[in-house]
Amino acid sequence: VNPTYQPIQLEAELTAVAELWSPRVVAELNGQMVKVAKLKGEFVWHQHDGEDEMFLVLKGAMRIQFEDGEVTLRQGECFVVPRGVRHNPVADEECWIMLFEPANTAHTGEVVTARTRSLAEQTQHRREAG
Amino acid sequence: VNPTYQPIQLEAELTAVAELWSPRVVAELNGQMVKVAKLKGEFVWHQHDGEDEMFLVLKGAMRIQFEDGEVTLRQGECFVVPRGVRHNPVADEECWIMLFEPANTAHTGEVVTARTRSLAEQTQHRREAG
Repeated sequence: VNPTYQPIQLEAELTAVAELWSPRVVAELNGQMVKVAKLKGEFVWHQHDGEDEMFLVLKGAMRIQFEDGEVTLRQGECFVVPRGVRHNPVADEECWIMLFEPANTAHTGEVVTARTRSLAEQTQHRREAG
Repeated sequence: VNPTYQPIQLEAELTAVAELWSPRVVAELNGQMVKVAKLKGEFVWHQHDGEDEMFLVLKGAMRIQFEDGEVTLRQGECFVVPRGVRHNPVADEECWIMLFEPANTAHTGEVVTARTRSLAEQTQHRREAG
């Protein structure tokens, strides 16, 4: 059996995530990255000038705040934040999500905070497993 | 409230899908399309020469056959079929999935069959709703 023919198990990937707001890259396709993350509390207001970003809730619920409103996402719901739109993810309780964004996207946008994780940090587990 | 701040409810989108193997576009980001589809039975062997394609199972289970093996995907599991790899999706029971692929991807690859749905057909509901 070809060892690459293994499914990506999202729940197992998320179980391996120890830190809140620290995205874990689980797949790449067409220059886009698929990530999982655990959220709780408030992130940071930011924007991605050149990239759209999709959030899909796998467990729990989250809100995405915008300057003129917000959207609530529950399990099985997703939303695309268009490029250039300032937003702030908030999770009142712990929420598990899947993220889609280009490989070059900084997850805190133009803002660098204590929560900023480099792409090397987001993919570290893959090199260790390799 | 800005009417664009509505979540995409995957189960509701899938409930609206009447036909098997007929992808429904639910979102677009960065030139990629997010689609949902209901599968049952065997699709058709094909490949996408320039595009990777991701399958995520939302309900049920499916298999992706390759020329030298296969992968089984259950709920909450995903897999990226790399560009150029011949594959055939199979669902022994009805399976609900999410698909990620570039906007220009023909879902039956280079093969045109009775199951081929044009992008206009895959997005028809969005123009009707608009």
